[in-house]
Amino acid sequence: MGAAQEMLAALLDGDRSALARAITLIESTREADAQVARSLLEACMPRSGNSARIGITGIPGAGKSTLIDTLGLRLLDHGHRVAVLAIDPSSARTGGSILGDKTRMERLAQHPGAFIRPTAAAGHLGGAGRRTRETIVLCEAAGYDRIIVETVGTGQNELEADALTDITVLLLIAGAGDELQGIKRGIMESADVIAFTKCDGEMLARARLAQRELQSALQLLAPRAHGQRPGTYLTSALTGEGIDLLIAEVERLAASQTDSGYLMQRRRQQDLLWLDHAVTEALKAAFNRHPAVAAALPRLQKAVVEQALSPFAAADELLALFRTSGEPHP
Amino acid sequence: MGAAQEMLAALLDGDRSALARAITLIESTREADAQVARSLLEACMPRSGNSARIGITGIPGAGKSTLIDTLGLRLLDHGHRVAVLAIDPSSARTGGSILGDKTRMERLAQHPGAFIRPTAAAGHLGGAGRRTRETIVLCEAAGYDRIIVETVGTGQNELEADALTDITVLLLIAGAGDELQGIKRGIMESADVIAFTKCDGEMLARARLAQRELQSALQLLAPRAHGQRPGTYLTSALTGEGIDLLIAEVERLAASQTDSGYLMQRRRQQDLLWLDHAVTEALKAAFNRHPAVAAALPRLQKAVVEQALSPFAAADELLALFRTSGEPHP
Repeated sequence: MGAAQEMLAALLDGDRSALARAITLIESTREADAQVARSLLEACMPRSGNSARIGITGIPGAGKSTLIDTLGLRLLDHGHRVAVLAIDPSSARTGGSILGDKTRMERLAQHPGAFIRPTAAAGHLGGAGRRTRETIVLCEAAGYDRIIVETVGTGQNELEADALTDITVLLLIAGAGDELQGIKRGIMESADVIAFTKCDGEMLARARLAQRELQSALQLLAPRAHGQRPGTYLTSALTGEGIDLLIAEVERLAASQTDSGYLMQRRRQQDLLWLDHAVTEALKAAFNRHPAVAAALPRLQKAVVEQALSPFAAADELLALFRTSGEPHP
Repeated sequence: MGAAQEMLAALLDGDRSALARAITLIESTREADAQVARSLLEACMPRSGNSARIGITGIPGAGKSTLIDTLGLRLLDHGHRVAVLAIDPSSARTGGSILGDKTRMERLAQHPGAFIRPTAAAGHLGGAGRRTRETIVLCEAAGYDRIIVETVGTGQNELEADALTDITVLLLIAGAGDELQGIKRGIMESADVIAFTKCDGEMLARARLAQRELQSALQLLAPRAHGQRPGTYLTSALTGEGIDLLIAEVERLAASQTDSGYLMQRRRQQDLLWLDHAVTEALKAAFNRHPAVAAALPRLQKAVVEQALSPFAAADELLALFRTSGEPHP
């Protein structure tokens, strides 16, 4: 039995440490690991897909971890197995500390039905997205049927989050009428559900006002591809306010997307997008690490910025360098 | 004197038909024309940049042509020379009829200080954007100091429009509270100025209400990179309502962007974006026209859609085919 088969058996058996090892394997940059990782992934593929993939996004401080902790426990109560994956650009600085994430979601981390994993800090966004895409496949094969993908809504990775999940929940803190300050509109665009967090005590009245304002604003904007505008919810992880309503809405959306066939269509479109994305990333990587291109790029960028050369002439020059090399291949 | 020098002299002389011929040259797909076009463009580069590049976008029926006709005449009255370029995906069907555009902007077309040109229908968007980028350079070298770029705001090309112009004016028709229906939010995101059109007669009261609603909604969204939220204007090409205010706002923005240095910074960022875009497009084109890749692509896409293969395994297979060929080059 090969390494991939052995790991697959333990993983299908529901062994959490096997799942953790499998994720470490696909995150590995070692050449020897790549082939095993690929076999494992291809074997998991037919066993994947049976989950609701839920994106949770919001700016730092929006209360993502606290809400996921509460939400996750409630989903476990409903008999689900819950995996939480985090794409956090800032984890490049903290080293993607698993301990950090487990502390942030303290109650969930102690539950045997939950699995929490940050996406290891990657050099570039494309890599983190791909690894998260593959981690979802592993988690589903391991029997997790509610996958929560946490992203920091800074406008850098909302497109990737949209290509990873079925449903996006945007978290907002109710402010003084300016609750969307700093939120890129592209994030609003991909929200299926919007939840105000920390709606307790003195904040509750303010949150009700913010909710009404937001609902008017949403009426002015185009609905999502599935034809619905995002519902808005007031939640508090402290008092439990709105959590059941929020879960009910997410579950309702998941069921309706499955029934209508929208889900299958969306996931297949996502797959074709990842195919295209992977090809483009590989081509660009091959181009950028080409020695002659890398050597000429700073000079040509400078010429473009100084308007000594048009961007198209600069591109032609770089492409000629790439073309005339002995090893231009991705 | 070479063909490029001859054309350059006529163009700098302000000869409108020389400008039209120069644009036809850069639009040409003939190999022989490409070198002349490139020389001409590089010669025009140092003489370009001295204009306000104004994007006008809106859904079909928003009244773009009528507003541009009125706006253009007013700019001519102010002593400007006005060029109107249109990126219209639908021109692929009509053949990009110049007559059509001239009929749409009847008064402007008859004025000796104006130049109207649709971007010839291109196979793909990237090509149309690039040609418009180059046409702007030619128009500026020919002395046009107000360049209006008209795009259909269908969400397909707003990013390219944003990479072409300094200021984006979004046109909306005042409806019954649903004036943004069908407008992709990405277009709202790139608007510097929003103008309601056809604000005359019975529509005026409705437009005033729509304007107030829109202003509230805009308060909830993040401001643009230059720190300002879009101003909203009520205009009528019929009565002339609001046209002077709209022009004053566009001119104020143009002056303030120039004074603050934002304009130079933005244009250099656009140039680096075009460089990157041109490289990526060329790499993807080389990949897609590779015989082995083109032959295998339908089968692999089918396997991905049927979940027999992961998108990443399919990408690896395609890249291997590209790599092992004798002529993989862009």
